[in-house]
Amino acid sequence: MADIDSPIETNSAGSGIEVTTGPIRGSTKVHIGPLRVAMREIALEPSSGEPPVRVYDTSGPYTDPAANIDIAAGLPLLRREWQLTRGDVEEYAGREIQPEDNGLKGPDRSAGVPTFPNVVRRPLRAKAGANITQMHYARRGIVTPEMEYVALRENIGREAALDAAIRDGESFGAAIPDHVTPEFVRDEVARGRAIIPSNVNHPEAEPMAIGRNFLVKINANIGNSAVASDVANEVDKMVWSIRWGADTVMDLSTGRNIHDTREWIIRNSPVPIGTVPIYQALEKVDGVAEDLTWAIFRDTLIEQAEQGVDYFTIHAGVRLPYIPMTAKRVTGIVSRGGSIMAKWCLAHHKESFLYEHFDEISEICAAYDIAYSLGDGLRPGSIADANDEAQFAELYTLGELTKRAWAQDVQVMIEGPGHVPMHKIRENMTKQLEACGEAPFYTLGPLVTDIAPGYDHITSGIGAAMIGWYGTAMLCYVTPKEHLGLPDRDDVKVGVVTYKLAAHAADLAKGHPAAQVRDDALSRARFEFRWRDQFHLSLDPDTAEQYHDQTLPAEGAKTAHFCSMCGPKFCSMKITQEVREFAARQNQPVAEFVAAEEAEAGMAQMSEKYRETGSELYIGAGGREHD
Amino acid sequence: MADIDSPIETNSAGSGIEVTTGPIRGSTKVHIGPLRVAMREIALEPSSGEPPVRVYDTSGPYTDPAANIDIAAGLPLLRREWQLTRGDVEEYAGREIQPEDNGLKGPDRSAGVPTFPNVVRRPLRAKAGANITQMHYARRGIVTPEMEYVALRENIGREAALDAAIRDGESFGAAIPDHVTPEFVRDEVARGRAIIPSNVNHPEAEPMAIGRNFLVKINANIGNSAVASDVANEVDKMVWSIRWGADTVMDLSTGRNIHDTREWIIRNSPVPIGTVPIYQALEKVDGVAEDLTWAIFRDTLIEQAEQGVDYFTIHAGVRLPYIPMTAKRVTGIVSRGGSIMAKWCLAHHKESFLYEHFDEISEICAAYDIAYSLGDGLRPGSIADANDEAQFAELYTLGELTKRAWAQDVQVMIEGPGHVPMHKIRENMTKQLEACGEAPFYTLGPLVTDIAPGYDHITSGIGAAMIGWYGTAMLCYVTPKEHLGLPDRDDVKVGVVTYKLAAHAADLAKGHPAAQVRDDALSRARFEFRWRDQFHLSLDPDTAEQYHDQTLPAEGAKTAHFCSMCGPKFCSMKITQEVREFAARQNQPVAEFVAAEEAEAGMAQMSEKYRETGSELYIGAGGREHD
Repeated sequence: MADIDSPIETNSAGSGIEVTTGPIRGSTKVHIGPLRVAMREIALEPSSGEPPVRVYDTSGPYTDPAANIDIAAGLPLLRREWQLTRGDVEEYAGREIQPEDNGLKGPDRSAGVPTFPNVVRRPLRAKAGANITQMHYARRGIVTPEMEYVALRENIGREAALDAAIRDGESFGAAIPDHVTPEFVRDEVARGRAIIPSNVNHPEAEPMAIGRNFLVKINANIGNSAVASDVANEVDKMVWSIRWGADTVMDLSTGRNIHDTREWIIRNSPVPIGTVPIYQALEKVDGVAEDLTWAIFRDTLIEQAEQGVDYFTIHAGVRLPYIPMTAKRVTGIVSRGGSIMAKWCLAHHKESFLYEHFDEISEICAAYDIAYSLGDGLRPGSIADANDEAQFAELYTLGELTKRAWAQDVQVMIEGPGHVPMHKIRENMTKQLEACGEAPFYTLGPLVTDIAPGYDHITSGIGAAMIGWYGTAMLCYVTPKEHLGLPDRDDVKVGVVTYKLAAHAADLAKGHPAAQVRDDALSRARFEFRWRDQFHLSLDPDTAEQYHDQTLPAEGAKTAHFCSMCGPKFCSMKITQEVREFAARQNQPVAEFVAAEEAEAGMAQMSEKYRETGSELYIGAGGREHD
Repeated sequence: MADIDSPIETNSAGSGIEVTTGPIRGSTKVHIGPLRVAMREIALEPSSGEPPVRVYDTSGPYTDPAANIDIAAGLPLLRREWQLTRGDVEEYAGREIQPEDNGLKGPDRSAGVPTFPNVVRRPLRAKAGANITQMHYARRGIVTPEMEYVALRENIGREAALDAAIRDGESFGAAIPDHVTPEFVRDEVARGRAIIPSNVNHPEAEPMAIGRNFLVKINANIGNSAVASDVANEVDKMVWSIRWGADTVMDLSTGRNIHDTREWIIRNSPVPIGTVPIYQALEKVDGVAEDLTWAIFRDTLIEQAEQGVDYFTIHAGVRLPYIPMTAKRVTGIVSRGGSIMAKWCLAHHKESFLYEHFDEISEICAAYDIAYSLGDGLRPGSIADANDEAQFAELYTLGELTKRAWAQDVQVMIEGPGHVPMHKIRENMTKQLEACGEAPFYTLGPLVTDIAPGYDHITSGIGAAMIGWYGTAMLCYVTPKEHLGLPDRDDVKVGVVTYKLAAHAADLAKGHPAAQVRDDALSRARFEFRWRDQFHLSLDPDTAEQYHDQTLPAEGAKTAHFCSMCGPKFCSMKITQEVREFAARQNQPVAEFVAAEEAEAGMAQMSEKYRETGSELYIGAGGREHD
């Protein structure tokens, strides 16, 4: 899947880091309402007689030609005023950056990427005794600007009246409203059914919600490792992944430069950033899991809280008694965080310090509004291990921890498997809803078979679409490189688009009132040979156009009523148009017309009439399907 | 997805047509039993202590180094002796090839591809009064060599005793046995629940079954069009598609050279070949649908029957009264065959000649043993049109026609949609089983959203896996070029592998007793860092190895306990191995051990003990998943 050129530009602004800017092909950035909620609008050909189609937009200022992108300065502080207005935060002298924050051996400057220059900002946190989570506000009945932003964003500009007409789906108990109001958002957040990840130190982020009664979201993982990748690549991948639709991004960096990489990413990210803090803590003890301590871990949480991480994956459900349950598995413990904790628990023969100090972690989360993503450290890594005792033992512990977090008004989502065959997917969703009180589920895939390395974006996309339908709120993408290597830029794009289509398929099947608008607009464009509209309405306009051009490169082929499948002589879609025109000419539905004519005239006469008026095949053809 | 070099060779044998030969990476061709049923065997590293894994093989002699491939001579006539032994067929002077068989303007020789040279063979057909279908034999209690071949093939060499132990799945009423016997095959064919497509004039084909109680099959579409492609390309694509797992291939050629293309394909195909005869008939009347006649269509059926087409898509369910039901659709009639018939019906204002002459078509099918693939000419072409009145009206007519075909002992499968959102897929399967008496369902996708042109192998792969799970017997692949252009070689491979993984996911979820063997073998290889075994066991070993090498190209990285995700310092899978070793050293399950030790000793002591014996982190790491 090659990258496309125009209209993509890259912008380095002298930082040595290049990112992709410029509008998405065929789209215009629009800002709605006083909060200036960002969306995309896809204008259609005038011949369509249709209004522009508005779509949800995750790409941030990078696709806005009016924005001044400066990687070294970071994005504007969209939420800062809202935060300060609430009067419950204080600026303070943050923790001092240590060399070992970039790994025990300190930062590696050989890649030529400097420390993020704009670090003069002092961090914010809740004033003593205050709680600044969106859940806390919600439970006190406060509708925040973040909630208002989310409401507008989730509606994608649609009108309540219009939506009510087109509900069709099976939502398995979800309660998606016809129209999302700020009060609905508040209520969902208060009940713990949705979260708005929003670390007070990441004011650059555009508010978004993760919850079963909102559009299904997707996450893209990026991050360097000890083996490959570097800071500039990771910032580029972040911007690239949100361009194609990533709703949140997790920085899973390991190895050196971990602090600096994260700083560059957060300062330039308009979407929430998640991390797995234990990765960095492990670097600080040079990779020796049993040397981890609560003090080192806590210090790492503060470090990342001050940088602005929006959600933490915490594997607090990997309890000592569950570890032996994995001994007979085909693939044991495949979660990296889970295995670090297993190693620690066995070495010390102690209960996990994450579990023991959970309420203290929640205090930190409450002070910065960091959401939990409770990690599934014991998720199955193969079809054989799906839905086993270890997996569900941990899930029920995550449910217990959810309630403890909620007691401090800390937002929570729950991570899910892994590798699961299709017939065992539903049970995961059912048990998660039951165990975790409807806290949002955030699943990796699941992969529905183990035998297709190189295609695991697809084996997992199948499971993702299904579990999204059943109720998962956010799908963690998998790229074609899963199990094999580190994803490059192309892999990131394929992973994001695959998950975007899976999430959309889930929205459709759940009966989300806004979902089918885009399918219908694209299908009408396809049927009417509006090729450019078809490209522009697709999830990846560049690839659609490129594929079309591989067979029929001429410019004329994009405007002609013609496609490469049937060729110029015959076209199935054209014939349906004739069926319609035939009906329209008679000014009555075809069925009635045929019935009436049959009664009046003999079949032979009728046939003659059609031959006179409608038998010319338009020389030019359309986008047929096989046979 | 780039093609890979070694060990693939191409072989032209002086025909000007190049095809890919040589073993699939890591596999050996084996032939089982007196019928020499072809399979692949994947040998594992000696360190595994595991026997080779046998897998179903569709690739024919092309992957057998012992075979002498000569495209200009065609494949050996595997089934000829079986056919002649039955004593119910006669050789006769076939229909003479007409210039217009290659299109009204005759063949186009500019591409440099000649007529297939080996055309001296006279066709076979049933003797007067005889019926030579597999269904006919089955209903008379005869177990044919074809059925014996299928039984061995479906078992993939597994033993009944072994299988019975690992049943786990939800089959929605399918009745997959622990072990497939020839008698089981006979019974399924007799009941119409499975077909063995086997035109007497395609003796080159290796017998295979399509039915809900067998492994889920996939079909690859190839074929030139008026706009692009040529004969050599199509033969190459056929060989390429079966290499990666296509169980049948449809030649959907339109335009000129249609007869010659088909001849080259059939003579060299070890899998059943399907066609849509109306395409060629339309070429004979220069693309003017209303000029089609039963005589021209019948002549085309005979022409293709004599060439050896194994199944015909016949859109006999597109009845005159159903056509107006499509007038209000978003995308009307998208099936090419369906729209040709709609055009004809409207022009003549007559019932479809396919419907009117259905029993005569069945007579031809019975004389050659051609299976019906009853076409869904009114299938939905968009999410908006799914499961509508027109679609189901046609389906119930296909059910009526199934019974008429069965009355003549003609084998039948039923084609299905199309574009269907996830929540409407199950209804398609349920209605098909009910309407068509469990005749095998053969579905295109279905695509679960319309908004991802360029990725429709994935939007449809999701639907395919689900409907395969629900009971579809064969999945018709969709390539990334769907709706946009003609698939090239790379697209064909991606389409085939995507559908192969979807079919396998369905087998797993249905609880097919042979399915999980391969997943488990691959997962063990993954867990034990046997990289080469992991590549070889995958559906596409070339791509798996290539992706691995993009991050870690060194030869050593394929044998080291090491992967690119976590790097050399830390590895989650390695830690699980330590959990196990820890348990094994104590010679008792970890759980019991921990409990016992806890009782005996204090935690501190226990911890000390582990530190002494098990705390070294192996410097080398494994195939972790995200977080």
